[in-house]
Amino acid sequence: MNMRASVMQHSYRQLAQALDSDIRAGRYQVGERLPSVREFASLKQLSVSTVIRCYRYLETEGLVEARSKSGMYVADWKVRAADQARTLASKTKLTPPAVEYDKLVSLQHRMTELYSLTAQPLQLGLHLASAAPEWYPCDALAKIAQRQLRQDPMLIGVYPGGTGLPALKTALIQWLKTSGVDLEASDLLITNGSTEALSVALRAVAQAGDAVIVESPVYFGLLQMLENLGIKAIEVPCVPGQGISLEALEYALEHQTGVRAVVAMPNFQNPLGCSMSEKNKKRLLRLIEQHDLALIEDDVFGDLSHLQHRPQAIKAWDRQGRVIYCGSCSKSLAPAFRVGWIAGGRYQARINSLKLSTSLITPLFEQAVLAEFMQSGTLPSHLRKLRERLAATIPLATAAIHRYFPAGTQVISPAGGWWLWLELPEHIDTLALLRQAVSVGIAFTPGSLFSGSGKYANYLRLNIGRPWGREMEQGMKLLGRLAQDVA
Amino acid sequence: MNMRASVMQHSYRQLAQALDSDIRAGRYQVGERLPSVREFASLKQLSVSTVIRCYRYLETEGLVEARSKSGMYVADWKVRAADQARTLASKTKLTPPAVEYDKLVSLQHRMTELYSLTAQPLQLGLHLASAAPEWYPCDALAKIAQRQLRQDPMLIGVYPGGTGLPALKTALIQWLKTSGVDLEASDLLITNGSTEALSVALRAVAQAGDAVIVESPVYFGLLQMLENLGIKAIEVPCVPGQGISLEALEYALEHQTGVRAVVAMPNFQNPLGCSMSEKNKKRLLRLIEQHDLALIEDDVFGDLSHLQHRPQAIKAWDRQGRVIYCGSCSKSLAPAFRVGWIAGGRYQARINSLKLSTSLITPLFEQAVLAEFMQSGTLPSHLRKLRERLAATIPLATAAIHRYFPAGTQVISPAGGWWLWLELPEHIDTLALLRQAVSVGIAFTPGSLFSGSGKYANYLRLNIGRPWGREMEQGMKLLGRLAQDVA
Repeated sequence: MNMRASVMQHSYRQLAQALDSDIRAGRYQVGERLPSVREFASLKQLSVSTVIRCYRYLETEGLVEARSKSGMYVADWKVRAADQARTLASKTKLTPPAVEYDKLVSLQHRMTELYSLTAQPLQLGLHLASAAPEWYPCDALAKIAQRQLRQDPMLIGVYPGGTGLPALKTALIQWLKTSGVDLEASDLLITNGSTEALSVALRAVAQAGDAVIVESPVYFGLLQMLENLGIKAIEVPCVPGQGISLEALEYALEHQTGVRAVVAMPNFQNPLGCSMSEKNKKRLLRLIEQHDLALIEDDVFGDLSHLQHRPQAIKAWDRQGRVIYCGSCSKSLAPAFRVGWIAGGRYQARINSLKLSTSLITPLFEQAVLAEFMQSGTLPSHLRKLRERLAATIPLATAAIHRYFPAGTQVISPAGGWWLWLELPEHIDTLALLRQAVSVGIAFTPGSLFSGSGKYANYLRLNIGRPWGREMEQGMKLLGRLAQDVA
Repeated sequence: MNMRASVMQHSYRQLAQALDSDIRAGRYQVGERLPSVREFASLKQLSVSTVIRCYRYLETEGLVEARSKSGMYVADWKVRAADQARTLASKTKLTPPAVEYDKLVSLQHRMTELYSLTAQPLQLGLHLASAAPEWYPCDALAKIAQRQLRQDPMLIGVYPGGTGLPALKTALIQWLKTSGVDLEASDLLITNGSTEALSVALRAVAQAGDAVIVESPVYFGLLQMLENLGIKAIEVPCVPGQGISLEALEYALEHQTGVRAVVAMPNFQNPLGCSMSEKNKKRLLRLIEQHDLALIEDDVFGDLSHLQHRPQAIKAWDRQGRVIYCGSCSKSLAPAFRVGWIAGGRYQARINSLKLSTSLITPLFEQAVLAEFMQSGTLPSHLRKLRERLAATIPLATAAIHRYFPAGTQVISPAGGWWLWLELPEHIDTLALLRQAVSVGIAFTPGSLFSGSGKYANYLRLNIGRPWGREMEQGMKLLGRLAQDVA
């Protein structure tokens, strides 16, 4: 078996195909219990998420079904095939549309198209911001959720109101003190993830036709968001290891008009993974004040320092209410919950109004579960473990890349989070590399997405937030070889 | 005991105050189990939601705590009082800020301020779109949710992607056939409630400076949303019992420039509760086509016909992809879930991109629970019951209003949903009436919020979506008397 085939065969689609054949051939009987997600993952030496995606796919196909209390079973698929449900299921079939690589770098589509990669038969999807599910306290959160549902089912019937669940606000206020941020409940709004937080923050300070300054390289989602809002993005370069260049920023502020805000990730920037020093954070804030601007501080990776030390947020020194602080539980605690928060300083009233007319309210259920988890006091120990895991993976990944990638490849190592930012030899176009990588089941984010200017065409971003093992080692080997071939 | 006091004393704050005193006086011991929400509601003859709000309030105050499996207990409040948690809790104290009645009618604030009413000590909050929690299948949904969490806790760790859970899309596609709407999975995007659906729909078809046509009277949330997007709202009058006047619409379309779309609720309009005839629906669609516009069809109340008959959506006849159909489970099935959907026709790609850069993704957990509930086939029987309850309440509410309100009060009865739209004698300013009503624990929505023009100052909207009983009868009596006094 060659290596490419071995990587391919473990994708969820390959797994689903094998199980599909087994079921149709009668090797699993109708009504027979299938292995649990965990059992199956350990049996096949696959990641939990691959098995989850496989079961989800077969459920849509009508081949398996989840049953009360006890797991996944082979569905009565012959009967289903006959009835209308079958025709319907075929309408929602997960036939992945082809990735439109040409659109991938368009400002309007870069995020949409990158997401469309996820639907491809991938073995290693290293392109998005998802760490391994088993690195999160899923069991503890699920237990809390079950208990709350048992105790208060009626809450499902209550139309929610307000700017966030008071209990979650209380827990967050206490937690944010570890970032040096001191808030009251009315300073805080709970959002549908940090994406919504960023979106309402931008709308609160800028209108179509205005400009904001962003870091370069920068999270591509922000570029698509700005494009959709009609706001111009002015890219100011980062100094690797340090964050946004304050000299370049000062120059830009003196020469650009119509700038309303700076958007920055002072802690563990996406994709560079670097943090600004305290001194530079304070300098940045002074620049904001001097130029009468707002600072939108995206701190979603702030809790994921590889050292056991939580860096301060710039919001900690904000005396004029100019810093709009955005955070989320999606990276550090519960990816599926989609709960974020925003502390908008002097812009809070406008932000609250915009949120209300964007999505009314954030679901309270996930908020209640998070609140109880945070109150239980186990967040610090969860984060300690997560940070250790991330820190342990970096040297392994870096070594593998140096082993397999073309000579001259530079690895920008992060101080927090799970990104590796790779600079490949100059003639390697990582968008072309991506096409080939996807065809063998690996995805990453090509560098050109991190700027609107065509920069970073020989860079790429890798998500290494998962247990290091044979799968990742083989993946790096394969990816390195593809890059060698292009080189 | 006079009537005002009797209405007052049942608000959740009054209940919480009483319980607070009982606990501090030692009538409930630390560690003692408190009655369940249901027991307490039945004991005190209060609504379930009042008790829920009371317990939530006391939990924030550190006086009670929820415990694993078995209910609500008296917390060790003396100890808590001493520690830091207490200071923090006080920061998030639910001291309701005063309602800024002057802001209530400002386009920028009408929704925000109306929501702020909810924080007041209300006995009868008839101002928002929430029906009684006990009218929803909370137990069934909670059971499904618990089972799913038990079976697949790992899903909490999976970062979601895509335009919605395939299983929910399958179930919705089948369900929407009852509205005459025939969709494929790729035509559909799951949103954070219908508010997000409306917001991305508007952004897909219009920019700041453009205009859209809305019905008059119209849902105030739409007016605040348009204001926040910088889109001009052109109000076209409705014919009570029929919906938007097509003659007036035709005239407006011939005389207004910059119009990009019409936003309408052809089924059970908010606040009028009326449905358009099939003939008029088709005429409206033809006008849209002739003027090269989009139609944003808000169908959130479509399932709540008081007859056991689901009217068609205009989307059913849309051959050119001009109708952007918006729906939600918040009114008909699970208010707390905040799951909506949008089928955007020719605008779908733009809508998907806007959603991605507004909130990335809608949480999958609630989607999975809804999907399983819908697949179980019990949605029709739930809706049958809900419709019967709504239909049974209308004549009781109408009779009570005629009994207690000033002579000349007209009640516009709905054909679906839970709104009563009241026209009071011309000299009665319902905004002034609201101030007085809130001071005795009753809230409604004053008519002036349903237009940007100052119209409908002597109208008001009441939500009667709750069991009719002494509480509501007394409330109508009190409200009628206040209106008499103003008259």
